[in-house]
Amino acid sequence: MKPKSKNIYWHEGNITKKDRERLAKHRGVCLWFTGLSGSGKSSIARETENLLYEKGIRTYVLDGDNIRHGLNSDLGFSPEDRNENIRRIGEVAKLFVDAGIIVMTAFISPYRQDRDRVRKILNEGEFIEIYVEADLETCEKRDPKGLYKKARLGEIKEFTGISAPYEKPENPELIINTSKETNVKENSKKIVEYLEKNGYLFFTD
Amino acid sequence: MKPKSKNIYWHEGNITKKDRERLAKHRGVCLWFTGLSGSGKSSIARETENLLYEKGIRTYVLDGDNIRHGLNSDLGFSPEDRNENIRRIGEVAKLFVDAGIIVMTAFISPYRQDRDRVRKILNEGEFIEIYVEADLETCEKRDPKGLYKKARLGEIKEFTGISAPYEKPENPELIINTSKETNVKENSKKIVEYLEKNGYLFFTD
Repeated sequence: MKPKSKNIYWHEGNITKKDRERLAKHRGVCLWFTGLSGSGKSSIARETENLLYEKGIRTYVLDGDNIRHGLNSDLGFSPEDRNENIRRIGEVAKLFVDAGIIVMTAFISPYRQDRDRVRKILNEGEFIEIYVEADLETCEKRDPKGLYKKARLGEIKEFTGISAPYEKPENPELIINTSKETNVKENSKKIVEYLEKNGYLFFTD
Repeated sequence: MKPKSKNIYWHEGNITKKDRERLAKHRGVCLWFTGLSGSGKSSIARETENLLYEKGIRTYVLDGDNIRHGLNSDLGFSPEDRNENIRRIGEVAKLFVDAGIIVMTAFISPYRQDRDRVRKILNEGEFIEIYVEADLETCEKRDPKGLYKKARLGEIKEFTGISAPYEKPENPELIINTSKETNVKENSKKIVEYLEKNGYLFFTD
């Protein structure tokens, strides 16, 4: 490694994750948001992305919008398809992490086993599980997409929290309780602080 | 948009592809390498990545190593599975392009229809098809993985070029003939030049 300028290095052989991290000045890592529908996963992920963008950090958010209409458009909501949905999201997140990106995934991902499987395919410290906690009553009151209403009417079957289980994370790296703290920006700041404190962001060579 | 410093912008709302491109100073784009086994797709993709890394450009290579063992580990080599393989790679490439990365895919991808389907899910100018051309004789002589030998012995069925067709691109953005020019670095330089000439790399605000 022979530095050519402040952040450009001469390179022989394949570019590795470490090389990309050195160029970007931050680590590649997966922030895995999990929680009930309406708990605030997507809003917090998007706001965290805003805060990180202001710092010049490379991020990407995987959510229902870009996954369900694209990569996983062939999957439905059967138990097998739900597993496969999370498996593929985990594998794509792994590619983004390898690419040196801070990738955020905003899916209910109700099963502990599915989330733990993703944790296992990533390296130590690359999977940050963020439990976006909110009681069912709060989420149901918010009901931004009207899904709880439909679930109560039986129009949606196996809806997490109503007719299907949500398995809380046992040892998440972070818990963001959006029933107690409703300000999205304040909640997102906690995530950036976590990344700063734990050495994921480094701005010196 | 209120610039805070040279390449950091204040942002409200979701971060878009354009925002990421402004931060990175290059476009998000897919370089889709296609060609026979042994034509040099992976070597050229990796060397192109080296050249772009020296310029501080964010890249990622999708190839058999990181796709077949991960995202597509559930797929075999039946016609349906081959289609699904390329479909998923295309969808993942689309996510990387949206993330503002120069993503390179190094797969034989022998069917025109599969490649054109990927071109269609991307926006105008985001899909650069690079035909890595080499005659079968040359590829078979190189045979870096010993696959042609196995195919000739009938140990691999439906092997592209031997017992399965390869459909040449009709209007690729670039043709790199590795039978004529065998130097990987020279071939990779042509790709970087293409990106420079066509406005994919911009280093001024």
